[in-house]
Amino acid sequence: MDKKELLYSGKAKSIYKTDDENKLVVEFRDSLTAFDGSKKSEAKNKGYYNAQISRKVFEMLESNDIKTHYIDMISDTEMLVESVEIVPIEVIVRNIAAGSITKKYPMEKGTRFKNPILVLDYKSDEYSDPMINEDIAVALGITDYEEIEKLRSLALKINELLVDYLDKSNLLLPDFKLEFGRKDGELLLADEISCDTCRLWDKETEESMDKDVFRYDKGDLSKVYEEVARRIIPEIFN
Amino acid sequence: MDKKELLYSGKAKSIYKTDDENKLVVEFRDSLTAFDGSKKSEAKNKGYYNAQISRKVFEMLESNDIKTHYIDMISDTEMLVESVEIVPIEVIVRNIAAGSITKKYPMEKGTRFKNPILVLDYKSDEYSDPMINEDIAVALGITDYEEIEKLRSLALKINELLVDYLDKSNLLLPDFKLEFGRKDGELLLADEISCDTCRLWDKETEESMDKDVFRYDKGDLSKVYEEVARRIIPEIFN
Ligand SMILES: Nc1ncnc2c1ncn2[C@@H]1O[C@H](COP(=O)(O)OP(=O)(O)O)[C@@H](O)[C@H]1O
Ligand SMILES: Nc1ncnc2c1ncn2[C@@H]1O[C@H](COP(=O)(O)OP(=O)(O)O)[C@@H](O)[C@H]1O
Ligand SMILES: [Mg+2]
Ligand SMILES: [Mg+2]
Repeated sequence: MDKKELLYSGKAKSIYKTDDENKLVVEFRDSLTAFDGSKKSEAKNKGYYNAQISRKVFEMLESNDIKTHYIDMISDTEMLVESVEIVPIEVIVRNIAAGSITKKYPMEKGTRFKNPILVLDYKSDEYSDPMINEDIAVALGITDYEEIEKLRSLALKINELLVDYLDKSNLLLPDFKLEFGRKDGELLLADEISCDTCRLWDKETEESMDKDVFRYDKGDLSKVYEEVARRIIPEIFN
Repeated sequence: MDKKELLYSGKAKSIYKTDDENKLVVEFRDSLTAFDGSKKSEAKNKGYYNAQISRKVFEMLESNDIKTHYIDMISDTEMLVESVEIVPIEVIVRNIAAGSITKKYPMEKGTRFKNPILVLDYKSDEYSDPMINEDIAVALGITDYEEIEKLRSLALKINELLVDYLDKSNLLLPDFKLEFGRKDGELLLADEISCDTCRLWDKETEESMDKDVFRYDKGDLSKVYEEVARRIIPEIFN
C-alpha cells in the first residue's frame, strides 16, 4: 500500500491518504509538544518506539475482541489504518492520581482510585480541549447518549486489559487517553496508545516512563521510551 | 424561634444557629459578589427580594412534592430552615446557552438545548468550584453513585417545575444552580433559588433580570430584582 498525499499533520503524527479511500497511513514523527502546544521539541527514535508500542498494544487488544483501526505496519514508523470519522472526544481513563487532576482537585499524587475515573474532553485545539460531560457532548452535536455509553464501556474494558498487560512488564498505568472513530456503524479504537498518550510508571520506583519526562524535564526521553519498548516488545531489539 | 450564634458567613447569606439544633436561620444579605469573589458590591433590598423569591419558589416546589429545607420566614430577610449536611456539589442546570458555557465551548448565546444540560461543580472556594463528573465526585469521597443519580433526577424535576412556573411570569430560565443537603437519610433542596442563583431573562426582550446585571454592569440591580419580585410575588407589594 503506497502513501499518497498528506491529509493532516498533527502535533506528533502525520496522516496520509493511500490508493484505497478506506485506508490511511499514520506516520509517527519524532516531534513532541506539551502544555497545549506551548512546549516543543524533538526526540530521536520517539516516532519509532511509539509506533511499535502502539502496534503491539493494538494487536493485544484485537486478540481480546477490541476492534481497532490498526491493519498493518508498512515501515518501522508507518502504520496502515482504517480511515475513520474521529469522534472529537478524548476519553481519559485514570487509575492513579497524577498530573492535572492533582492540581484541579484535592487529590494527592499516587492515590489509587477504587473505581477508574473517566473524563471526557472535547477535542478542540481552538477551545484547548475543555472537559465536557454527556449532556454537553450531545448539545455540541458531536455524539449521542447511546454512542457515549459505548465509548465508556469500551474505555473501561480497554483499561482492564491494558492494566493487566502492562503489569507483566512491571509498568503501572496511572492514566491514558483514547480516541475512537466511526466506521460502517461501528466504533473502532483509533489514534495511538503509546508513551505519549499513557502515563506509565515503573512499578517499583514509580518513576515516570512517559511524556512527563519531557513535560517536567526529568531526563532523556529517547532512553526512557526505549526502555518501555524493551519491556513491552523485546523482540524488536533482536 | 430565636437566632443564636453565627455559624457561617458566606458571600451572600449568613447562617445562624437556633434553640433547636435541627434548625438554622438563613439571613439573606444585601452583599453581592461575582467572578469567584473578585467583584464585590451591595444592592439595596437585594436580600429582601432574594429571600422572598426563594420562599415563594420553595413553597411552589413543596406543593409539587419536592422536599426542601424551607420551614418558615422569621422576618422579611430571615428564613428558618432544616439544618442539613450540604452535599458539596453545585448542580447546574442549563436550558439556554448563556455565560461561561458560551466561552468554554462553541455554543452561541441564546441557543435552546433540546435536552437540559446538567453540570456538576465541586463546591470549593479553595479550588474555585471546578467542574467534576460522577467518577471524580466519588473519588473525592463526597458522595456515591446512588446519591448522584438522585441529585440528577431531582434537579431535572425541579427544572421542569421551575421553567413552567417562571413562564407564567414571562421569565425564561437559561440556567440555575442548586445545592442539596442530607437530613435523616433524605436529600432536601437547600440554599436558595433566587436572582443570584438563576439566570432569568425577560421572555420578550431576553434582557437579563438576574445577577448578570451586576456582573456585566447592565443597570440597577435593585430595580431589576424588584421587577422579578413584582412578577413572581406581587402580593408582597400590597
Ligand atoms: N484512523 C484514523 N482515521 C482518521 N483520523 C485519525 C485516525 N487515527 C487518528 N486520527 C487523527 O489523526 C490525528 C493524529 O495526529 P496527532 O499528531 O495526534 O494530531 P493532534 O495534534 O490533532 O493530536 C489526530 O487528530 C487523530 O484524531
Ligand atoms: N439548610 C442548610 N444547612 C446548612 N448549610 C446550608 C443550608 N442551606 C445552605 N447552606 C450553606 O450555607 C451557605 C450559604 O451562604 P452563601 O452566602 O451562599 O455561601 P457561599 O459563599 O459558601 O456560597 C452555603 O455555603 C450553603 O451551602
Ligand atoms: Mg494527538
Ligand atoms: Mg452560595
